[in-house]
Amino acid sequence: MARTLKITLSYDGTRYVGWQRQASGESVQGLLEEAVARFEGNAVSAQGAGRTDAGVHALGQVASVQVTCGHPVETMARGLNAWLPPDVRVIKVEDAAEGFHARFSARSKTYRYLLRNASPVSPFERAYVWHVPETLDVSAMQAAATVLVGTHDFSSFCSAGSNVRESVRMVSRSIIDYIEADLVPYISTREEHTLLAYEVSANGFLRHMVRAIVGTLVEIGQGRRSAASMAKLLERGTRAEAGATAPPHGLFLVAVDYD
Amino acid sequence: MARTLKITLSYDGTRYVGWQRQASGESVQGLLEEAVARFEGNAVSAQGAGRTDAGVHALGQVASVQVTCGHPVETMARGLNAWLPPDVRVIKVEDAAEGFHARFSARSKTYRYLLRNASPVSPFERAYVWHVPETLDVSAMQAAATVLVGTHDFSSFCSAGSNVRESVRMVSRSIIDYIEADLVPYISTREEHTLLAYEVSANGFLRHMVRAIVGTLVEIGQGRRSAASMAKLLERGTRAEAGATAPPHGLFLVAVDYD
Repeated sequence: MARTLKITLSYDGTRYVGWQRQASGESVQGLLEEAVARFEGNAVSAQGAGRTDAGVHALGQVASVQVTCGHPVETMARGLNAWLPPDVRVIKVEDAAEGFHARFSARSKTYRYLLRNASPVSPFERAYVWHVPETLDVSAMQAAATVLVGTHDFSSFCSAGSNVRESVRMVSRSIIDYIEADLVPYISTREEHTLLAYEVSANGFLRHMVRAIVGTLVEIGQGRRSAASMAKLLERGTRAEAGATAPPHGLFLVAVDYD
Repeated sequence: MARTLKITLSYDGTRYVGWQRQASGESVQGLLEEAVARFEGNAVSAQGAGRTDAGVHALGQVASVQVTCGHPVETMARGLNAWLPPDVRVIKVEDAAEGFHARFSARSKTYRYLLRNASPVSPFERAYVWHVPETLDVSAMQAAATVLVGTHDFSSFCSAGSNVRESVRMVSRSIIDYIEADLVPYISTREEHTLLAYEVSANGFLRHMVRAIVGTLVEIGQGRRSAASMAKLLERGTRAEAGATAPPHGLFLVAVDYD
């Protein structure tokens, strides 16, 4: 019996080459395909909703995979977690409608980027935040983040090497603010709120798009470019005119939404 | 000018042999002594308030060290963090009174032990919680934890190999409960409260004492021993009669209090 499974995953991307299989190095896609193949008895191919880069984490990555095995979804979730390493966890396995594809069926995806705006960075958060210790003009960053909402050509925020021809995307949410709690409240002694989170939802993302936006927002916060420069980058910018690409380890694929 | 420094540290103990220098492997004490020696120009000796075992973490370990260098404490904190690896961070450097000793001057220490009472364990907390997925009788665990408060002989909770002759300690706080939030709320999708925390404060701790108490509490929660057995262990028990030693990676030295 042909089935399409929808598998929701969380992973710590620190030691992986990213979601996608590469010529060398360990990928999350590769690990998941090997784990599903143990149930199936044959090689399988998994499609991921977001092709997270090396070092990028996921709270709710979604993969689709075609199988014929008849195991209940709960059995598969437990079995996959028994085979996968502890830094990759299956949150849920569901039966999906025929034709479901993790990427093509997705309506929107949400990413979160964490920055620690203080020193020192806790040993317990060092793999999950970008350390930006200097004073930031967060109001200017917030104004610039808001400009991104809507349908725009994001080619100024797309790294070379992308094979996507169309660079127009619809951003439905783009906000940055200090979080009113700590990243690891029960293993922390920090009291001030110095954890900055940028959250963005869109119907699709270009290569390195979130990290290029965050790099640009930080340069705005540092006073190295104006908040108004964001609109100019959307109108007629090039990648070279936008900010540097923020490091991967602060980025999380939070969730993928389907109809 | 002779000075005694009080240094407060946080560290992720995952890759260390513990606080104390050992014949082989990297210790937090060794790293701190090397970092302070760079300011001092000579070898120094650091005393730690708690000799955390291999794999045990610290939010507020305290070390004392004698130096003659005249650098301001803020300069030393920044400099030490520049030399230390990111999984060991200096939170604060202070000038202490002459004769201050991190261990002998301590009035009490507080440890916290974290258990995840659900599956799966998040990739982001896997190094900081003990995974105990089965249903636990938390009321029985709470009753047993309360029995420990007071002045008792804790030899039933002291591992062989300890060179301490006196095993009476005064426990001022001993509680276990589910925490009303997640360990990593901003990098988590979990909604239920399934993180159990055991907190204990005492004027001193024997070797593996917190981990032996937690192992015993879990066996009580699993129904493998009664809550009433805790009192018997305090009255006239042996280490063999108490529960197994809980794994190190769920344990944190939270804080050390001085007069």
